[in-house]
Amino acid sequence: MSFVDLGFARVDTDRHQRCGFPEVVFGAGKTPEEVVGIAAVLVEAHGLFLASRVTAAHYEALSAVFPEARWHERARCMSIERIPLPRRGGTVGVICAGTSDLPVAEEAVVTLEFFGNRVLRVNDVGVAGIHRLLAVRDKLEACSVLVVVAGMEGALPSAVAGLTSKPIVAVPTSVGYGASFGGLAALLGMLNSCGSGVTVVNIDNGFGAAYAAAQINRLVPEDAPLP
Amino acid sequence: MSFVDLGFARVDTDRHQRCGFPEVVFGAGKTPEEVVGIAAVLVEAHGLFLASRVTAAHYEALSAVFPEARWHERARCMSIERIPLPRRGGTVGVICAGTSDLPVAEEAVVTLEFFGNRVLRVNDVGVAGIHRLLAVRDKLEACSVLVVVAGMEGALPSAVAGLTSKPIVAVPTSVGYGASFGGLAALLGMLNSCGSGVTVVNIDNGFGAAYAAAQINRLVPEDAPLP
Amino acid sequence: MSFVDLGFARVDTDRHQRCGFPEVVFGAGKTPEEVVGIAAVLVEAHGLFLASRVTAAHYEALSAVFPEARWHERARCMSIERIPLPRRGGTVGVICAGTSDLPVAEEAVVTLEFFGNRVLRVNDVGVAGIHRLLAVRDKLEACSVLVVVAGMEGALPSAVAGLTSKPIVAVPTSVGYGASFGGLAALLGMLNSCGSGVTVVNIDNGFGAAYAAAQINRLVPEDAPLP
Amino acid sequence: MSFVDLGFARVDTDRHQRCGFPEVVFGAGKTPEEVVGIAAVLVEAHGLFLASRVTAAHYEALSAVFPEARWHERARCMSIERIPLPRRGGTVGVICAGTSDLPVAEEAVVTLEFFGNRVLRVNDVGVAGIHRLLAVRDKLEACSVLVVVAGMEGALPSAVAGLTSKPIVAVPTSVGYGASFGGLAALLGMLNSCGSGVTVVNIDNGFGAAYAAAQINRLVPEDAPLP
Amino acid sequence: MSFVDLGFARVDTDRHQRCGFPEVVFGAGKTPEEVVGIAAVLVEAHGLFLASRVTAAHYEALSAVFPEARWHERARCMSIERIPLPRRGGTVGVICAGTSDLPVAEEAVVTLEFFGNRVLRVNDVGVAGIHRLLAVRDKLEACSVLVVVAGMEGALPSAVAGLTSKPIVAVPTSVGYGASFGGLAALLGMLNSCGSGVTVVNIDNGFGAAYAAAQINRLVPEDAPLP
Amino acid sequence: MSFVDLGFARVDTDRHQRCGFPEVVFGAGKTPEEVVGIAAVLVEAHGLFLASRVTAAHYEALSAVFPEARWHERARCMSIERIPLPRRGGTVGVICAGTSDLPVAEEAVVTLEFFGNRVLRVNDVGVAGIHRLLAVRDKLEACSVLVVVAGMEGALPSAVAGLTSKPIVAVPTSVGYGASFGGLAALLGMLNSCGSGVTVVNIDNGFGAAYAAAQINRLVPEDAPLP
Amino acid sequence: MSFVDLGFARVDTDRHQRCGFPEVVFGAGKTPEEVVGIAAVLVEAHGLFLASRVTAAHYEALSAVFPEARWHERARCMSIERIPLPRRGGTVGVICAGTSDLPVAEEAVVTLEFFGNRVLRVNDVGVAGIHRLLAVRDKLEACSVLVVVAGMEGALPSAVAGLTSKPIVAVPTSVGYGASFGGLAALLGMLNSCGSGVTVVNIDNGFGAAYAAAQINRLVPEDAPLP
Amino acid sequence: MSFVDLGFARVDTDRHQRCGFPEVVFGAGKTPEEVVGIAAVLVEAHGLFLASRVTAAHYEALSAVFPEARWHERARCMSIERIPLPRRGGTVGVICAGTSDLPVAEEAVVTLEFFGNRVLRVNDVGVAGIHRLLAVRDKLEACSVLVVVAGMEGALPSAVAGLTSKPIVAVPTSVGYGASFGGLAALLGMLNSCGSGVTVVNIDNGFGAAYAAAQINRLVPEDAPLP
Repeated sequence: MSFVDLGFARVDTDRHQRCGFPEVVFGAGKTPEEVVGIAAVLVEAHGLFLASRVTAAHYEALSAVFPEARWHERARCMSIERIPLPRRGGTVGVICAGTSDLPVAEEAVVTLEFFGNRVLRVNDVGVAGIHRLLAVRDKLEACSVLVVVAGMEGALPSAVAGLTSKPIVAVPTSVGYGASFGGLAALLGMLNSCGSGVTVVNIDNGFGAAYAAAQINRLVPEDAPLP
Repeated sequence: MSFVDLGFARVDTDRHQRCGFPEVVFGAGKTPEEVVGIAAVLVEAHGLFLASRVTAAHYEALSAVFPEARWHERARCMSIERIPLPRRGGTVGVICAGTSDLPVAEEAVVTLEFFGNRVLRVNDVGVAGIHRLLAVRDKLEACSVLVVVAGMEGALPSAVAGLTSKPIVAVPTSVGYGASFGGLAALLGMLNSCGSGVTVVNIDNGFGAAYAAAQINRLVPEDAPLP
Repeated sequence: MSFVDLGFARVDTDRHQRCGFPEVVFGAGKTPEEVVGIAAVLVEAHGLFLASRVTAAHYEALSAVFPEARWHERARCMSIERIPLPRRGGTVGVICAGTSDLPVAEEAVVTLEFFGNRVLRVNDVGVAGIHRLLAVRDKLEACSVLVVVAGMEGALPSAVAGLTSKPIVAVPTSVGYGASFGGLAALLGMLNSCGSGVTVVNIDNGFGAAYAAAQINRLVPEDAPLP
Repeated sequence: MSFVDLGFARVDTDRHQRCGFPEVVFGAGKTPEEVVGIAAVLVEAHGLFLASRVTAAHYEALSAVFPEARWHERARCMSIERIPLPRRGGTVGVICAGTSDLPVAEEAVVTLEFFGNRVLRVNDVGVAGIHRLLAVRDKLEACSVLVVVAGMEGALPSAVAGLTSKPIVAVPTSVGYGASFGGLAALLGMLNSCGSGVTVVNIDNGFGAAYAAAQINRLVPEDAPLP
Repeated sequence: MSFVDLGFARVDTDRHQRCGFPEVVFGAGKTPEEVVGIAAVLVEAHGLFLASRVTAAHYEALSAVFPEARWHERARCMSIERIPLPRRGGTVGVICAGTSDLPVAEEAVVTLEFFGNRVLRVNDVGVAGIHRLLAVRDKLEACSVLVVVAGMEGALPSAVAGLTSKPIVAVPTSVGYGASFGGLAALLGMLNSCGSGVTVVNIDNGFGAAYAAAQINRLVPEDAPLP
Repeated sequence: MSFVDLGFARVDTDRHQRCGFPEVVFGAGKTPEEVVGIAAVLVEAHGLFLASRVTAAHYEALSAVFPEARWHERARCMSIERIPLPRRGGTVGVICAGTSDLPVAEEAVVTLEFFGNRVLRVNDVGVAGIHRLLAVRDKLEACSVLVVVAGMEGALPSAVAGLTSKPIVAVPTSVGYGASFGGLAALLGMLNSCGSGVTVVNIDNGFGAAYAAAQINRLVPEDAPLP
Repeated sequence: MSFVDLGFARVDTDRHQRCGFPEVVFGAGKTPEEVVGIAAVLVEAHGLFLASRVTAAHYEALSAVFPEARWHERARCMSIERIPLPRRGGTVGVICAGTSDLPVAEEAVVTLEFFGNRVLRVNDVGVAGIHRLLAVRDKLEACSVLVVVAGMEGALPSAVAGLTSKPIVAVPTSVGYGASFGGLAALLGMLNSCGSGVTVVNIDNGFGAAYAAAQINRLVPEDAPLP
Repeated sequence: MSFVDLGFARVDTDRHQRCGFPEVVFGAGKTPEEVVGIAAVLVEAHGLFLASRVTAAHYEALSAVFPEARWHERARCMSIERIPLPRRGGTVGVICAGTSDLPVAEEAVVTLEFFGNRVLRVNDVGVAGIHRLLAVRDKLEACSVLVVVAGMEGALPSAVAGLTSKPIVAVPTSVGYGASFGGLAALLGMLNSCGSGVTVVNIDNGFGAAYAAAQINRLVPEDAPLP
């Protein structure tokens, strides 16, 4: 199993083979130079590069070396796709409870599309107006897996779980008044969901939810129906 | 403003006048003898007595002195009503998410009826099967105030708040798997409800919710319509 | 049941009909453009708009389109009232423990007045000088419902509950020294109040308390006496 | 959408149609009589019944009415399968870090088999002896989805995620010394996994993980290869 | 500085000289034999022995050796006073919010009297009936120091601090509904008291509060007036 | 009992009479104008004013109106002493574990001197070099009361308590590495002190500790010996 | 690398070779039969067996098969030593703050001796009587590594660290009043120690501390001096 | 035992003698002037000075007085080595899970080298690509002690502990998504490690880990083999 040792990083060039997707870089706490160094290894190995939690300074350094690099501002991601991953069958739904949760949903969408998935986006269908959710129920059921993003009390995954039969990956966000405690309330809400089968990722971790959904969607036959 | 000093307790016989309802005794941590002593003062003053969080031992001691005392087992309450409080107009809805939440809902119902309120009970309408809730929406709207009891993620108050215009007092319960942390998840869920106007009481505190609902229902004209 | 789909938001134009009050926008995490887009839908539907947790940048964008928009700086709210809601009977008391809690109390007052309620304000009556509270007891009893705002240990709702018979909606604030933990101490204090009937909203959530109080005050006959 | 109202419960007989699996009963906090009453409705509707978190007393009451009921002691479950669910293609791996985690893994296995899934069990492969995990790597990769159960620091899902390409549902358990805080350490560990794509359910919630895995395994074609 | 080494304990026979009071034994987690062994050293050294958090088994073992030992059941303490400490001037007030807090108040009273202090006891004067507290204000002001015991939201010290000029040692108790979290709510409430000068000891630690009050009362001249 | 109603504040001009010290203003969250308004009332009533947790902006506004106002920068306090409080007998020790804790110790010293107390300062005597503490033991014993300030694990009060007989008011500070959690570690350490008689105030609350110490020192006869 | 697969356990018979010590069994949550099954494998492989956190029922089952098994009651351990590990040079000090911490210290001592280490025990030298610690300072300095066990505020490791130059492994215990929160206070205290070089293990984890100390002591030359 | 009293600090010039290493200054919360003042004493006493958690402002002040001072930017340390400590035998491994953890690892390396240790650095060998760790196993086993730095779930120490026989000092970092809660997840993970013998220091406390490792490495004979 291979890796490239840069001193400050051992880039796992074997991961694509082993896990099905190339390594994605977590940018927070890394210098722009370090991120560019890692990018060079990954582009060389796979023709592909994705980093989450990066800033404009990271992007500036990257695009100086790789002019084709793309900046996904609201998602705080940047990507290079010289050899895009093949398009997959099936559709991944990304549902979001409120407009304030959009940056996290964006991180999920950017990741899913980078991994070759078709995405259905449904925004602002929180449980305070349940008719908005009921109106899209058939579309959700036609997806193969659903990423559900919500802050505050994080109740949306429970409601979705009660209306469809598809796997749900829930993402708590840090949106809310004081006692949301930076997303803890939504996290606990989702972990305690009365809707069976809801699984949960870290607070604001749109990337992680997308990765799990991409793994699940890969199980679906190529000719799964469209929503 | 009066009180009766028993040494171990200063019974607040003025509270009925000041706050509109007689003092209710919190039984936990008090000996049976102490509870009976306080009961004697309150029955003498108002012809009324209610205690929450009591055990069979408390009831045994009370009924030895006051044979008319009633034991509300599942609600862990006991009461004496020599001079019942007058029946009020309006209806208080007590809605409960799951069968496991019934003991807390019972505490609320016993308290509400002791305070003279008509109660509408709706059990087991959690958000995992939202059609069960939609089926009773008109009945809920016809109440003057709603007590909503739920454990796990505590999402029911949000859903109810999105379907009616009535004040909602939410009660988190300690029902749930490990990370409910004794009801903390439901408590935080309700405090962060995206459904506007939800107010919250302590975990498993059916009594407190009922007290608040009784205060609210007292504002309603006597001839409020039935649900 | 209707809504307007803006892509980034599904504005719940049915809520006024269903819940009795139009949707109020939570501004945090939304761009100025998004807030203005939502405002346009709500003003069109109801002639009314209120947003909480907004910044000067949000207001600037709104007033460029709606010159009649008002900026409530200390409350961090902005509003448009082309067709004001009808004035209600009854009075809502907004009581605040200390001067440092004023921004949260302001959010409650702005919301209550937007919803058509008469408000009685009583500031700085914390329990460290209980005579200040005793001096206004009769005025509080003449209200139909009380919003009580306090930081630090959050003891004021307990004291008020012991002096009046009216429903109390308690708002913990994040004011305090280190171990207030951003309002957690006040929140727990209020949830554990020995004063029966106190219900609680999220930390610093003046809006939520006002919404609940407005729902309660709507139960009062139009000719309720003035405090 | 149908349900059966028993007063103390509204049994959701529509869920099988809507969500793909019949309702499973959470036994904790329900009396034996209540559980049997619900069982009667579900057996009538689907010929199927499963309850988690039950005691010997629950089983005794159930088997008195339904002699064919089975008692899964270590998993704390009981079941009735008059009309078993059809056997599914694909295999679900249930991997467990230590022998002390077995009761939770058992709950997952019972649930998965009830839902018609073939299960591969791998016990006691914690990261302190990583060679035990490497020895089964190919078997894990041949599954369609993996349930990974671990207490203490909950590191096993991270290690598994680095070795396979399959979706992982992680279950933290309450096994450990003092600062595991009833499974909180394992829960946080799994939520923060550096292994991409790990999703998490509640502490000790073998049922929830199994339900999610069954939803995912349903996406797999019937002729998926055996591990 | 002296001590006696018993192997399982090094009894600090110098503490009386150094700190003004003899060592008091914390009984929890010690076997009856260990406690008796320590008692023998302390009785030999000072003619005095006090242990807190002991059970009937501890007392049985002690009284078999020291028949004059006293058992303070509700306070969970036992004591031997062959050579009682001298009686002090000044009076220590022990005020308690509710009858359920009595065991903790008892621990404080037993300790204070063992240390030679005159004690004024005032029970059940919680803030929900503030007139009960106002009625004893002059008596409290005549004490030299006040121990204030309260559970639930722990608001009593704040109210007392606003009515008197004397030092207040506050003791939170574990009495309360779910979100008291074993006394955490009262503890945080007291630490955040808006009543200046309130100092706090550990949850249910009546002994610690009494020790501090005894140190403070020792500063008072012998002829301080009686309350 | 008197107060002055400024609308935004009810200044408690009776507190000096009732509690022995004039009201001290908590500046955080108050505008400079509000603080100056309150100052005007207190200076008029008592010739005295002290505010904690203020910024340069507060001081600028105050000194524009009261040129004699003093700015205590490191303590974040400001004061006016037209009619200083009388000098008291006895000495209050202010002991601080490390140089990083100095701002909190300063707040205590400023408050104590404002209230008329003689102060003995001992800095940087943490338990990692216990000989530094042993060197000042006699000076500490000669004080009437000790304020002990420490961050990190907050062990200093335990060590001091084992070496002297005087009351100790412990102040945890927010100084420390990550798992000090903003002073929580020191706070819990002090609350759990094995040194009997340690009482505790809020994190970084030098003012509160000083107030309590001033109340205690007031019990001491005027001719108490000097340290 | 070898292991033995028992189905419910994969016993890591390679660990002795890899890590220097044979696997030690964590008994909690395992049935007596499972523990005995694992013991058989380990005795066969190494002639050695140690289990922590076991009950009398575990011991009964073990001694029925292995009559030479020893029961360490207070330490909650059991062991078999057919081929004892070689005796090591150097001495490990096990220092304990109070008598109530003895069970945890015992677990450390049993483990250390099983691993072939000479142990120096020093009990009951908490910081409240620092002279007891100063009296043994030279003995501690003569050890190669120190295990320091303390509950409550956990201050003892800081004091020891300031007096010696040897590595310290600190063990927090769950001994204490309410706000010790099951040992959390001591844990945080030790993690925040101002005494440089203190490292910490889990609450009540005497075994883990002993294991670390045994690893460290193995670095010492065989002829290290005696304390 | 000596110290130098600067008023704001009592510099412990005896510590080198007592504990084997000179005092290291914790810079956070100290002014540049204070740090320089302390440096002057320590350089005078030992010809050595090291400070952690300092800013550029601290360094500027120091280098103005001591031009030979070195600035370790990423480690946030500064040092003066007029009389360097003697070079030690043995090697300390510093292993780090991800590139984002480098600043904490740097603090450890700077400290270890200042104390005279040879350091082996291994970066970016997190458990998500376990082959990177297996590739360096022999090098790690050749060290005398290992400092293992990891954020997120903190699983690396468990994996290392299962592969080597050397003492491990684990350092949790604050790197991670929301529910890392500033490093709490990694801290709890390490404290609950299933890998026996892992000991833990405070979050981000590279200095503390290095200090402990230096104490351990000092036990090793001078001629220990190189890795």
